[in-house]
Amino acid sequence: MSSATSSPLNRYQQLAAEIEASIRDGVLRPGDRLPSVRQCCAQRRVSPSTVFQAYYLLEARGLIRARERSGYFVAQGGRLAPPEPEALSQPDSASVQVDVTERVFSVLQASLQQGTVPLGSAFPGPQWFPWHKLARAMVASTKQAAEDRPALDDLTPGHLGLRRQIARRYLADGMPLAVDDLVITNGALEALNLCLAAVTRPGGAVVVESPCFYGALQALERLGLHAIEVPTHPRDGLDLQALEAAITHYQPQALWLMTNFQNPLGSLMPAAHKQALVELVTRHRLPLVEDDVYGELYFAPQRPLPAKAWDREGWVLHCSSFSKCLAPGWRIGWAAAGRFTAAVARHKLTTSIGSNAPAQAALAQYLEGLGYDKHLRHLRHGLALQRDRMAEAIARHFPPGTRATRPEGGYFLWLELPQGCDAWALYQRALQQGISLAPGAMFSASPAFAHCLRLNYGMAWSPAIDTALQQLGQWCCEMAAA
Amino acid sequence: MSSATSSPLNRYQQLAAEIEASIRDGVLRPGDRLPSVRQCCAQRRVSPSTVFQAYYLLEARGLIRARERSGYFVAQGGRLAPPEPEALSQPDSASVQVDVTERVFSVLQASLQQGTVPLGSAFPGPQWFPWHKLARAMVASTKQAAEDRPALDDLTPGHLGLRRQIARRYLADGMPLAVDDLVITNGALEALNLCLAAVTRPGGAVVVESPCFYGALQALERLGLHAIEVPTHPRDGLDLQALEAAITHYQPQALWLMTNFQNPLGSLMPAAHKQALVELVTRHRLPLVEDDVYGELYFAPQRPLPAKAWDREGWVLHCSSFSKCLAPGWRIGWAAAGRFTAAVARHKLTTSIGSNAPAQAALAQYLEGLGYDKHLRHLRHGLALQRDRMAEAIARHFPPGTRATRPEGGYFLWLELPQGCDAWALYQRALQQGISLAPGAMFSASPAFAHCLRLNYGMAWSPAIDTALQQLGQWCCEMAAA
Repeated sequence: MSSATSSPLNRYQQLAAEIEASIRDGVLRPGDRLPSVRQCCAQRRVSPSTVFQAYYLLEARGLIRARERSGYFVAQGGRLAPPEPEALSQPDSASVQVDVTERVFSVLQASLQQGTVPLGSAFPGPQWFPWHKLARAMVASTKQAAEDRPALDDLTPGHLGLRRQIARRYLADGMPLAVDDLVITNGALEALNLCLAAVTRPGGAVVVESPCFYGALQALERLGLHAIEVPTHPRDGLDLQALEAAITHYQPQALWLMTNFQNPLGSLMPAAHKQALVELVTRHRLPLVEDDVYGELYFAPQRPLPAKAWDREGWVLHCSSFSKCLAPGWRIGWAAAGRFTAAVARHKLTTSIGSNAPAQAALAQYLEGLGYDKHLRHLRHGLALQRDRMAEAIARHFPPGTRATRPEGGYFLWLELPQGCDAWALYQRALQQGISLAPGAMFSASPAFAHCLRLNYGMAWSPAIDTALQQLGQWCCEMAAA
Repeated sequence: MSSATSSPLNRYQQLAAEIEASIRDGVLRPGDRLPSVRQCCAQRRVSPSTVFQAYYLLEARGLIRARERSGYFVAQGGRLAPPEPEALSQPDSASVQVDVTERVFSVLQASLQQGTVPLGSAFPGPQWFPWHKLARAMVASTKQAAEDRPALDDLTPGHLGLRRQIARRYLADGMPLAVDDLVITNGALEALNLCLAAVTRPGGAVVVESPCFYGALQALERLGLHAIEVPTHPRDGLDLQALEAAITHYQPQALWLMTNFQNPLGSLMPAAHKQALVELVTRHRLPLVEDDVYGELYFAPQRPLPAKAWDREGWVLHCSSFSKCLAPGWRIGWAAAGRFTAAVARHKLTTSIGSNAPAQAALAQYLEGLGYDKHLRHLRHGLALQRDRMAEAIARHFPPGTRATRPEGGYFLWLELPQGCDAWALYQRALQQGISLAPGAMFSASPAFAHCLRLNYGMAWSPAIDTALQQLGQWCCEMAAA
């Protein structure tokens, strides 16, 4: 936590870290009662909400348990976890031509093989999702549409009722958006691609995180754009000083970032960073394409706002979807593209006209009900528990020197293997044994992440996953010892 | 029919034209019995199938009627029709930068106004489609999917069952395709865009028809490609001699054509032309992007095969969808991209991952049943009748010198107005009175079609449409006289 490159924790994160240290050190033991919120406020000179958030976080990490009317207690068998990586990434300092597609496709293809333990998958397991309730909404809205003989009003910018529901949710989270700010798309990836195409010209350069979502690299490659990979912290995301230097030096046409639960790191930009980021892009009149597909999958008490929430002048092109949190395979996402909304809508019209009308109507119907928040609470709780299970397995089975991020949301964690471990070799060996993983080389045009990999903890936990992690850890131990 | 630039009619078309002339001239009068098929074969020295096809065509045009067990009779009030345009188009002979998007958007935007008589619309009316049966298929497949907890297998290349059904239909029409040749897309427009992107690089040139579908021009504009507009015949489509000259002169990277019921002309390339076209592109190793979205909407007895049917070496990237013939708004289309299939699938994965899974499953289920062919017969018959009604209204109300194509399928016809008529001025005047139409300027980067317009005869016929056509004709008469 004392590394020069790490950024300060929030108060509640710091409090949680202190209590966690006391548990790890054995100062607090399983069954011990934690101070009441009131006591803790007085002892630490913090506000009640800080204490609540810290306790909530520790509970989500499986370290403490609430008992009704008697407060919080240290959990039995508080989980082991590997240390977190702390250093900023150090990508090649250059604007580079992107050529990752072959690598990415070979990995994606391989993960599709039947019977593979899908630790390299990009999606959470299907067991999380309310398929029956979605089916009911689809049935109702399709029957309604059959009566109405639907016209084509649901094409671009998209179903009015659905746009209303999306705007209503943002409003409830403290980010007012107008219905007309939203364009419905075929998932977030189409939204991101349309936004990028609307604000760039071939030959230009675009800032991305290092490492970053391979979809961003593929989009740059397809549009003939160069990538500027900017150093990124595994917990706090993009380094703003490095960003400002890159902007001055390379004069990029745009940025493409994930501010919440970044893929692959799981990093979360602190609110103050987001605000500073928006000020920076506004000052430079630079479009910021923000990918927020994991924003709803937070483990803390409140949704972390996206950078878009600080956007006063319309430079943020915010994109998200229902593919990770509600309806994978339905391919319904959206863009709130600020001053570029009309341009994005036109790109949408000329590339695919519109998005599936029945799915839009069904999602509008589903969101009108009360089930979505309940579903999300269940999903978040489940993912938080699985993150801890995976962290514990890594701590048990991987060689000393292994570090893993501890994301506050989403379903990916990022592993830094110790010296001597080659993630691509591990990937190939694992694949032969029916285990998929996502090697670091997928997430950067530079070779900086050869010892890193991304694991998906969003699958239903199973003995096969446990065995796979044990096996991966053993191979890493062999590599590290060699 | 004797113009030097027109191409020969098929035998059955020629026979139909001769009989039609006899009806128009009064040689055959309403109620007269036509020769039996056997008699006609003997008289004209043609095969029975030629006679059947000719009679079928005349029936579709409303000129003759079958009476059970007694043969064919000249119909009461055989319809009036304006003369067909006969001259090849004469586009600017140059490779031009495209800049039509503003024009097209202003027209599309205007047509969306409530209460407009939508003669400029790009879609048939909603009354044609089997919404209840589609809803039933959607209900069944969604419930099934809820049981199965769907995985993500239906993403690219798409739902296996749906690809099987599509391949099965092509096979029945005499065009065998493998299931793995097909990539499911968000409608045909995405398929076309992916195909074009897969075979071109910015700065290159692409052959299109003159006039052509504005979506092709928009795609070229977005991808930074130049258009080579090649002379096109209003009945037979692209002129192959002009095409060969353009290929030699401009060395295009690809062609984008509609061989069946071209938008906006309604032209149909004769089979021999299609075969020659495929030989030509194969010889030049040139990718041909073929848009066949109207291919199922034929009025003759048999489906006209697309150029893809002659493609032995994989140079044809054939695209189509269900948006015009079964499920508008569902946005499900496909590409059969020959040697470029893998490249197109990759483009699909990196731009929008996949297409809506519930809609794919529902369409697969619907196509397994027997209703689709019945629906299509009903739709084709209805469209053929409406084409004749519109032709008659044009013949009655528009000034002498007006010509209109008489498409053998689809739901667009193309009007050439006489000297002095400006289609853009007509469009603007009509819009003020709540009538939309598609002026010629939308369909070309050159100003060659200022006196032309496209009308949609696919809407439910109504007094409002009759009145609108009368009004349009009157304005044209005023313009022509001024």
